[in-house]
Amino acid sequence: MDSGGFFKSNVMNVAKSIKKTGKDDPRRVIHSLKVGLALTLVSLFYYSRPLYDGFGVAGMWAVLTVVVVFEFTVGGTLSKGLNRGCATLLAGALGVGAQHLAIAFGKKGEPIVLGALLFILAAGATFLRFFPRIKARYDYGVVIFILTFSLVTVSGFRVNEILELAEQRLLTILIGGATCMVVSILVCPVWAGQELHNLVASNIQKLANYLEGFQAEYFQDKQKSKSSLQGYKSVLGSKASEESLGNLARWEPGHGAFRLRHPWKQYLKLGALARECAYKIETLNTYLNPEIQECMELRCKFEEPCKIMSSESSKALKAISSSMKTMTAPSAAKCHIENSKTATKLLKVALETISLEDAQLIAIIPVVTIASILEEITKTVE
Amino acid sequence: MDSGGFFKSNVMNVAKSIKKTGKDDPRRVIHSLKVGLALTLVSLFYYSRPLYDGFGVAGMWAVLTVVVVFEFTVGGTLSKGLNRGCATLLAGALGVGAQHLAIAFGKKGEPIVLGALLFILAAGATFLRFFPRIKARYDYGVVIFILTFSLVTVSGFRVNEILELAEQRLLTILIGGATCMVVSILVCPVWAGQELHNLVASNIQKLANYLEGFQAEYFQDKQKSKSSLQGYKSVLGSKASEESLGNLARWEPGHGAFRLRHPWKQYLKLGALARECAYKIETLNTYLNPEIQECMELRCKFEEPCKIMSSESSKALKAISSSMKTMTAPSAAKCHIENSKTATKLLKVALETISLEDAQLIAIIPVVTIASILEEITKTVE
Repeated sequence: MDSGGFFKSNVMNVAKSIKKTGKDDPRRVIHSLKVGLALTLVSLFYYSRPLYDGFGVAGMWAVLTVVVVFEFTVGGTLSKGLNRGCATLLAGALGVGAQHLAIAFGKKGEPIVLGALLFILAAGATFLRFFPRIKARYDYGVVIFILTFSLVTVSGFRVNEILELAEQRLLTILIGGATCMVVSILVCPVWAGQELHNLVASNIQKLANYLEGFQAEYFQDKQKSKSSLQGYKSVLGSKASEESLGNLARWEPGHGAFRLRHPWKQYLKLGALARECAYKIETLNTYLNPEIQECMELRCKFEEPCKIMSSESSKALKAISSSMKTMTAPSAAKCHIENSKTATKLLKVALETISLEDAQLIAIIPVVTIASILEEITKTVE
Repeated sequence: MDSGGFFKSNVMNVAKSIKKTGKDDPRRVIHSLKVGLALTLVSLFYYSRPLYDGFGVAGMWAVLTVVVVFEFTVGGTLSKGLNRGCATLLAGALGVGAQHLAIAFGKKGEPIVLGALLFILAAGATFLRFFPRIKARYDYGVVIFILTFSLVTVSGFRVNEILELAEQRLLTILIGGATCMVVSILVCPVWAGQELHNLVASNIQKLANYLEGFQAEYFQDKQKSKSSLQGYKSVLGSKASEESLGNLARWEPGHGAFRLRHPWKQYLKLGALARECAYKIETLNTYLNPEIQECMELRCKFEEPCKIMSSESSKALKAISSSMKTMTAPSAAKCHIENSKTATKLLKVALETISLEDAQLIAIIPVVTIASILEEITKTVE
């Protein structure tokens, strides 16, 4: 291929991946436009002469706030905005206090006292960031605290008009933060709580799909495509995103079907159970390997109870998932779990009469028990 | 308890958790002191009159850079510093270009053209952040790009001395960034690469401990404590931290036993295999449940091969882990894996002679196969 063709194919590839990223989740495109909108709104404010004269250079803090605070979810934006506002206020007050203290030490002592205070506060606040609970919820606030405190002590040493500066800065941060929040809530909002709800529900759905596909694949029914057997892999690594969404959801006001203090922790528990179930499915999956040969005769004897177990567990998981989506009690799931429990008993009987082990079938048992635990937890959530 | 006592016990609790956090990893305390040191150094620079006169208010950008750029690992600091520097340079140049373009449209067209350009660039750059590869490595750079571009276009509209401002800002960011890098590399450095190496090695060690503990627990030897059976749980959720360390390690120069282009991707693959192994152990672990009753007579028949399998796999994993630490080829691991493979064959023979299944024993088989895959991968790493 010549260099022109190479370049062309490269551009085509990039265009394709841009299209794919946008298509996978159209809200990404909307989010990008929202950031552009918020930023343009704030700079319009900056362009209008009367307002500019009131704030001067401090106006750029509004722009800075928009860029740094605007996040994909409403919870993210609110959490960063509130963290930023509170931390600036606290650090500003402490900074002014530090100034007053330092002045008492005279012209020579002032920089030494300020330097020492800065060192102690920066080191202490940085250490705070290592606590898991603070890291999860207030990490950004602590960074802004260090930032503002050092700016106030350092600049205050020169400017001597800290109070006015602090007022300007707080006002501009307020303007920037408010713009972000308004745009992020009013224009096609993406709620972290709703995201978490959907993520957990779709994870359970994926497990159900796997069990359905496993049954078809293992007993060679061949009606289902293989794709349903891969979906569960994403459940294995979903811990980090579930936890961050859970943390952001706390910051959100009530929206849609969710109240202000929705039990988000229950979702994390449910997610953890779904993950445990996925770990077991991962083990189960290794037995689909065609290299492992078994006696077909034996397999037939186990076929009936195993089919019932996997299809009933799958139905139960689907019922849980859809009852989560509609936010009703999962009554249908209950009878499916009962069915699969009776199938487990049938299997045990079959195992006792026939002699020789079949690891695949045994491996389904924990899946069924997990499904029944899942069901109990779901009742508490809804 | 009276309110004074309550307050006292609260303070005691906080003090305890501070002590624990510091003791768990003393480098956290050192890191906090390093941040304090870097910040004090930069503000000392700000306090010295001759330098201050040269930079004016721009000096605060050095402080800002230190607070935002300084990370726990050297890789994190370098990645953020380089991202910040390059993004500021690029966005500054584009911002000046945008100004020149806007001026050509006359006094009235200027704010409209600038606003449109700002909207397009901010939306485009925000969209870029959704690409996983850019998100992992250049996320911070893109944020700084939007920030700098909007500051230059917005403030330039007023100040008309952009070039001088840009020069000052770049210089101060350079000073702040250089201070961070020097302090983070010279004072007790924490290398992301070394961290990744240790994390993967200790994860493999944890799996080995589990298998050792499992053997003792399941066959009631009772010599080992139960604590070794919990360690593997942390391996299950190690994906996110391994990936972020892997990304940061790319930014680091050669250090210790690691060259500049060390094959960090191999560590991620090894980590993924260790996780797969941990998933299987998670399933195995459910069989330790005392509620599940089995025939003791049967168990005795399987005891010998199973003990060999778990102890030899455990030894193989330990050998891999320690050969990683010393960075030598894992020759000892090979013979342990051979031993456990022969034990697997013994088990199969035992199973064929005796009739009735024992799921626990079958569940060990995949662990052994994973151990042998692990061994092959390790050879490619070292």
